[in-house]
Amino acid sequence: MLPLLDRIDHVGIACRDLDATVALYRATFGLEVASLEVNEEQGVREAMLRAGPAAAGLRAGSPAAGAAGPGYVQLLQPLAPDTPVGRFLARRGEGLHHVGYGVADIGQALAAVAAAGIRLLDERPRHGSMGASIAFLHPGDLGGVLTELVQAAR
Amino acid sequence: MLPLLDRIDHVGIACRDLDATVALYRATFGLEVASLEVNEEQGVREAMLRAGPAAAGLRAGSPAAGAAGPGYVQLLQPLAPDTPVGRFLARRGEGLHHVGYGVADIGQALAAVAAAGIRLLDERPRHGSMGASIAFLHPGDLGGVLTELVQAAR
Repeated sequence: MLPLLDRIDHVGIACRDLDATVALYRATFGLEVASLEVNEEQGVREAMLRAGPAAAGLRAGSPAAGAAGPGYVQLLQPLAPDTPVGRFLARRGEGLHHVGYGVADIGQALAAVAAAGIRLLDERPRHGSMGASIAFLHPGDLGGVLTELVQAAR
Repeated sequence: MLPLLDRIDHVGIACRDLDATVALYRATFGLEVASLEVNEEQGVREAMLRAGPAAAGLRAGSPAAGAAGPGYVQLLQPLAPDTPVGRFLARRGEGLHHVGYGVADIGQALAAVAAAGIRLLDERPRHGSMGASIAFLHPGDLGGVLTELVQAAR
Protein backbone atom coordinates (compact mmCIF):
# COMPACT_ATOMS: atom_id res chain seq x y z
CA MET A 1 0.00 0.00 0.00
CA LEU A 2 1.38 3.35 -1.06
CA PRO A 3 1.19 6.15 1.46
CA LEU A 4 -2.01 8.08 0.92
CA LEU A 5 -0.46 11.24 2.35
CA ASP A 6 2.09 13.47 0.62
CA ARG A 7 3.04 15.75 3.47
CA ILE A 8 1.95 17.57 6.57
CA ASP A 9 0.14 20.43 4.86
CA HIS A 10 -0.57 22.43 8.00
CA VAL A 11 -1.24 22.47 11.70
CA GLY A 12 -4.44 24.25 12.69
CA ILE A 13 -4.28 26.35 15.84
CA ALA A 14 -7.31 27.90 17.55
CA CYS A 15 -6.82 31.39 18.94
CA ARG A 16 -8.98 34.15 20.38
CA ASP A 17 -7.25 37.08 18.66
CA LEU A 18 -5.97 36.37 15.18
CA ASP A 19 -4.10 39.62 14.69
CA ALA A 20 -2.28 39.27 18.01
CA THR A 21 -1.37 35.66 17.28
CA VAL A 22 -0.11 36.48 13.79
CA ALA A 23 2.03 39.21 15.36
CA LEU A 24 3.34 36.72 17.94
CA TYR A 25 4.39 34.21 15.28
CA ARG A 26 5.99 36.95 13.20
CA ALA A 27 7.93 38.37 16.15
CA THR A 28 8.98 34.98 17.50
CA PHE A 29 9.70 32.97 14.36
CA GLY A 30 9.77 35.47 11.51
CA LEU A 31 6.80 33.77 9.81
CA GLU A 32 4.85 35.80 7.26
CA VAL A 33 1.22 35.63 6.23
CA ALA A 34 0.75 33.80 2.94
CA SER A 35 -3.04 34.08 3.00
CA LEU A 36 -5.68 35.79 5.13
CA GLU A 37 -9.27 34.66 4.60
CA VAL A 38 -12.72 34.56 6.10
CA ASN A 39 -14.43 31.21 5.69
CA GLU A 40 -18.09 31.80 6.54
CA GLU A 41 -19.00 28.16 6.03
CA GLN A 42 -16.53 27.07 8.70
CA GLY A 43 -17.12 30.13 10.85
CA VAL A 44 -13.52 31.28 11.02
CA ARG A 45 -11.21 34.10 10.15
CA GLU A 46 -7.85 32.52 9.42
CA ALA A 47 -4.27 33.15 8.45
CA MET A 48 -1.85 30.77 6.76
CA LEU A 49 1.77 31.37 7.76
CA ARG A 50 4.42 29.62 5.71
CA ALA A 51 6.66 27.60 8.03
CA GLY A 52 9.78 27.97 5.96
CA PRO A 53 11.36 29.63 2.95
CA ALA A 54 8.89 31.01 0.44
CA ALA A 55 10.44 29.39 -2.61
CA ALA A 56 9.75 25.87 -1.42
CA GLY A 57 6.50 26.65 0.24
CA LEU A 58 3.94 27.59 -2.37
CA ARG A 59 0.93 25.36 -2.09
CA ALA A 60 -1.05 26.65 -5.02
CA GLY A 61 0.34 25.55 -8.34
CA SER A 62 2.78 23.06 -6.90
CA PRO A 63 2.51 19.53 -8.25
CA ALA A 64 0.09 17.73 -6.01
CA ALA A 65 1.68 14.29 -6.02
CA GLY A 66 4.76 14.12 -3.87
CA ALA A 67 4.87 17.85 -3.30
CA ALA A 68 6.47 18.53 0.05
CA GLY A 69 6.77 22.16 1.00
CA PRO A 70 7.60 23.32 4.48
CA GLY A 71 3.96 23.36 5.55
CA TYR A 72 1.80 26.08 7.03
CA VAL A 73 0.78 27.26 10.45
CA GLN A 74 -2.95 27.91 10.16
CA LEU A 75 -4.27 30.29 12.81
CA LEU A 76 -8.03 30.18 13.34
CA GLN A 77 -10.22 32.71 15.12
CA PRO A 78 -13.92 31.87 15.39
CA LEU A 79 -16.43 34.31 13.90
CA ALA A 80 -18.82 33.54 16.77
CA PRO A 81 -18.96 31.40 19.92
CA ASP A 82 -21.44 29.01 18.31
CA THR A 83 -19.05 27.68 15.69
CA PRO A 84 -16.83 24.58 15.81
CA VAL A 85 -13.72 26.58 16.69
CA GLY A 86 -15.68 28.78 19.11
CA ARG A 87 -16.91 25.69 20.95
CA PHE A 88 -13.39 24.24 20.92
CA LEU A 89 -12.04 27.40 22.57
CA ALA A 90 -14.75 27.30 25.23
CA ARG A 91 -14.07 23.64 25.97
CA ARG A 92 -10.28 23.35 25.60
CA GLY A 93 -8.88 26.85 25.40
CA GLU A 94 -6.39 28.07 22.83
CA GLY A 95 -4.06 25.56 21.22
CA LEU A 96 -3.66 22.83 18.63
CA HIS A 97 -6.97 22.17 16.90
CA HIS A 98 -6.28 19.83 13.96
CA VAL A 99 -3.68 18.59 11.51
CA GLY A 100 -4.03 18.73 7.73
CA TYR A 101 -2.27 16.27 5.42
CA GLY A 102 -1.72 16.77 1.71
CA VAL A 103 -3.17 14.24 -0.72
CA ALA A 104 -2.89 14.01 -4.50
CA ASP A 105 -6.58 13.28 -5.13
CA ILE A 106 -9.04 14.01 -2.37
CA GLY A 107 -11.87 11.99 -3.89
CA GLN A 108 -9.73 8.86 -4.04
CA ALA A 109 -8.32 9.57 -0.59
CA LEU A 110 -11.77 9.90 1.00
CA ALA A 111 -12.89 6.66 -0.60
CA ALA A 112 -9.79 4.85 0.66
CA VAL A 113 -10.12 6.24 4.18
CA ALA A 114 -13.82 5.38 4.35
CA ALA A 115 -13.04 1.86 3.13
CA ALA A 116 -10.58 1.57 6.02
CA GLY A 117 -13.48 2.21 8.41
CA ILE A 118 -12.91 5.86 9.30
CA ARG A 119 -16.02 8.05 9.56
CA LEU A 120 -15.96 11.12 7.34
CA LEU A 121 -17.15 14.44 8.73
CA ASP A 122 -17.32 15.67 5.12
CA GLU A 123 -18.62 13.10 2.66
CA ARG A 124 -17.64 15.42 -0.16
CA PRO A 125 -14.75 17.89 -0.36
CA ARG A 126 -15.41 21.52 0.46
CA HIS A 127 -13.64 24.80 0.12
CA GLY A 128 -10.48 25.27 2.21
CA SER A 129 -7.71 27.83 2.47
CA MET A 130 -5.95 29.11 -0.61
CA GLY A 131 -8.33 27.43 -3.02
CA ALA A 132 -7.71 23.91 -1.76
CA SER A 133 -10.30 21.14 -1.61
CA ILE A 134 -10.51 19.77 1.91
CA ALA A 135 -12.40 17.29 4.05
CA PHE A 136 -12.33 16.41 7.74
CA LEU A 137 -12.20 12.92 9.25
CA HIS A 138 -13.77 11.94 12.55
CA PRO A 139 -11.37 12.34 15.49
CA GLY A 140 -13.13 9.53 17.33
CA ASP A 141 -11.76 7.07 14.77
CA LEU A 142 -8.25 8.55 14.72
CA GLY A 143 -7.09 8.57 18.31
CA GLY A 144 -8.68 11.88 19.22
CA VAL A 145 -7.03 13.80 16.39
CA LEU A 146 -9.23 15.96 14.19
CA THR A 147 -7.66 15.17 10.81
CA GLU A 148 -8.07 17.05 7.56
CA LEU A 149 -7.18 15.97 4.04
CA VAL A 150 -6.05 18.70 1.65
CA GLN A 151 -5.80 18.64 -2.11
CA ALA A 152 -3.94 21.77 -3.18
CA ALA A 153 -5.37 24.08 -5.81
CA ARG A 154 -4.06 23.31 -9.29
CA MET B 1 13.87 38.91 9.58
CA LEU B 2 14.37 35.54 7.93
CA PRO B 3 12.04 32.76 8.97
CA LEU B 4 13.60 30.87 11.85
CA LEU B 5 11.73 27.70 10.90
CA ASP B 6 12.49 25.46 7.93
CA ARG B 7 9.49 23.20 8.00
CA ILE B 8 6.92 21.40 10.06
CA ASP B 9 9.11 18.54 11.21
CA HIS B 10 6.39 16.55 12.95
CA VAL B 11 3.12 16.54 14.81
CA GLY B 12 3.27 14.80 18.18
CA ILE B 13 0.22 12.72 19.10
CA ALA B 14 -0.39 11.20 22.53
CA CYS B 15 -1.88 7.71 22.55
CA ARG B 16 -2.52 4.96 25.09
CA ASP B 17 -1.50 2.02 22.92
CA LEU B 18 1.37 2.71 20.54
CA ASP B 19 1.18 -0.57 18.65
CA ALA B 20 -2.56 -0.21 18.03
CA THR B 21 -2.17 3.40 16.90
CA VAL B 22 0.71 2.53 14.56
CA ALA B 23 -1.50 -0.19 13.09
CA LEU B 24 -4.36 2.32 12.69
CA TYR B 25 -2.18 4.80 10.79
CA ARG B 26 -0.78 2.04 8.62
CA ALA B 27 -4.21 0.63 7.77
CA THR B 28 -5.82 4.04 7.21
CA PHE B 29 -3.09 6.01 5.46
CA GLY B 30 -0.43 3.49 4.48
CA LEU B 31 2.15 5.18 6.68
CA GLU B 32 5.19 3.17 7.68
CA VAL B 33 7.39 3.33 10.76
CA ALA B 34 10.66 5.15 10.10
CA SER B 35 11.86 4.89 13.69
CA LEU B 36 10.73 3.22 16.90
CA GLU B 37 12.43 4.36 20.09
CA VAL B 38 12.17 4.49 23.86
CA ASN B 39 13.14 7.85 25.32
CA GLU B 40 13.57 7.28 29.05
CA GLU B 41 14.36 10.93 29.71
CA GLN B 42 11.02 12.02 28.26
CA GLY B 43 9.18 8.97 29.57
CA VAL B 44 7.83 7.80 26.23
CA ARG B 45 7.85 4.96 23.79
CA GLU B 46 7.43 6.52 20.36
CA ALA B 47 7.14 5.86 16.66
CA MET B 48 7.96 8.23 13.81
CA LEU B 49 5.80 7.61 10.72
CA ARG B 50 6.84 9.33 7.54
CA ALA B 51 3.91 11.37 6.18
CA GLY B 52 4.82 10.96 2.55
CA PRO B 53 7.11 9.25 0.07
CA ALA B 54 10.28 7.83 1.56
CA ALA B 55 12.66 9.44 -0.91
CA ALA B 56 11.80 12.97 0.14
CA GLY B 57 11.31 12.16 3.77
CA LEU B 58 14.66 11.26 5.28
CA ARG B 59 15.37 13.53 8.20
CA ALA B 60 18.79 12.24 9.11
CA GLY B 61 21.45 13.25 6.65
CA SER B 62 19.33 15.77 4.81
CA PRO B 63 20.72 19.28 4.55
CA ALA B 64 19.47 21.11 7.61
CA ALA B 65 18.95 24.54 6.08
CA GLY B 66 15.88 24.75 3.95
CA ALA B 67 15.25 21.02 4.02
CA ALA B 68 11.56 20.39 3.66
CA GLY B 69 10.55 16.75 3.70
CA PRO B 70 6.99 15.62 4.07
CA GLY B 71 7.20 15.59 7.87
CA TYR B 72 6.49 12.90 10.41
CA VAL B 73 3.61 11.75 12.53
CA GLN B 74 5.12 11.11 15.95
CA LEU B 75 3.06 8.75 18.09
CA LEU B 76 3.82 8.88 21.82
CA GLN B 77 2.86 6.37 24.48
CA PRO B 78 3.84 7.23 28.06
CA LEU B 79 6.06 4.80 29.95
CA ALA B 80 4.16 5.60 33.17
CA PRO B 81 1.23 7.76 34.33
CA ASP B 82 3.60 10.15 36.12
CA THR B 83 5.28 11.47 32.98
CA PRO B 84 4.44 14.55 30.91
CA VAL B 85 2.56 12.54 28.28
CA GLY B 86 0.93 10.38 30.96
CA ARG B 87 -0.38 13.48 32.71
CA PHE B 88 -1.53 14.92 29.37
CA LEU B 89 -3.54 11.76 28.67
CA ALA B 90 -5.15 11.87 32.12
CA ARG B 91 -6.07 15.54 31.69
CA ARG B 92 -6.99 15.81 28.01
CA GLY B 93 -7.26 12.31 26.61
CA GLU B 94 -5.67 11.06 23.43
CA GLY B 95 -4.92 13.55 20.67
CA LEU B 96 -2.60 16.25 19.41
CA HIS B 97 0.14 16.92 21.96
CA HIS B 98 2.68 19.22 20.31
CA VAL B 99 4.14 20.44 17.03
CA GLY B 100 7.82 20.27 16.10
CA TYR B 101 9.43 22.71 13.64
CA GLY B 102 12.73 22.18 11.90
CA VAL B 103 15.52 24.71 12.43
CA ALA B 104 18.98 24.91 10.90
CA ASP B 105 20.83 25.63 14.16
CA ILE B 106 19.04 24.95 17.41
CA GLY B 107 21.43 26.96 19.56
CA GLN B 108 20.87 30.08 17.48
CA ALA B 109 17.14 29.40 17.29
CA LEU B 110 16.80 29.08 21.09
CA ALA B 111 18.70 32.33 21.59
CA ALA B 112 16.47 34.14 19.08
CA VAL B 113 13.26 32.77 20.58
CA ALA B 114 14.34 33.64 24.11
CA ALA B 115 15.25 37.15 22.94
CA ALA B 116 11.70 37.45 21.59
CA GLY B 117 10.43 36.84 25.12
CA ILE B 118 9.39 33.20 24.91
CA ARG B 119 10.16 31.03 27.93
CA LEU B 120 12.21 27.92 27.16
CA LEU B 121 11.29 24.62 28.77
CA ASP B 122 14.73 23.38 27.74
CA GLU B 123 17.50 25.93 28.12
CA ARG B 124 19.81 23.58 26.29
CA PRO B 125 19.02 21.11 23.52
CA ARG B 126 18.47 17.50 24.42
CA HIS B 127 18.18 14.19 22.66
CA GLY B 128 15.16 13.72 20.38
CA SER B 129 13.95 11.16 17.88
CA MET B 130 16.26 9.84 15.18
CA GLY B 131 19.33 11.51 16.61
CA ALA B 132 17.95 15.05 16.42
CA SER B 133 18.71 17.83 18.90
CA ILE B 134 15.45 19.21 20.26
CA ALA B 135 14.09 21.71 22.76
CA PHE B 136 10.60 22.62 23.92
CA LEU B 137 9.16 26.13 24.27
CA HIS B 138 6.56 27.16 26.85
CA PRO B 139 2.99 26.75 25.57
CA GLY B 140 1.85 29.59 27.83
CA ASP B 141 3.83 32.03 25.65
CA LEU B 142 2.69 30.52 22.34
CA GLY B 143 -1.08 30.53 22.45
CA GLY B 144 -1.43 27.24 24.27
CA VAL B 145 0.69 25.28 21.78
CA LEU B 146 3.48 23.11 23.13
CA THR B 147 6.14 23.87 20.52
CA GLU B 148 9.35 21.96 19.83
CA LEU B 149 12.37 23.02 17.80
CA VAL B 150 14.23 20.26 15.95
CA GLN B 151 17.68 20.29 14.46
CA ALA B 152 18.04 17.17 12.37
CA ALA B 153 20.99 14.85 12.84
CA ARG B 154 23.83 15.57 10.43
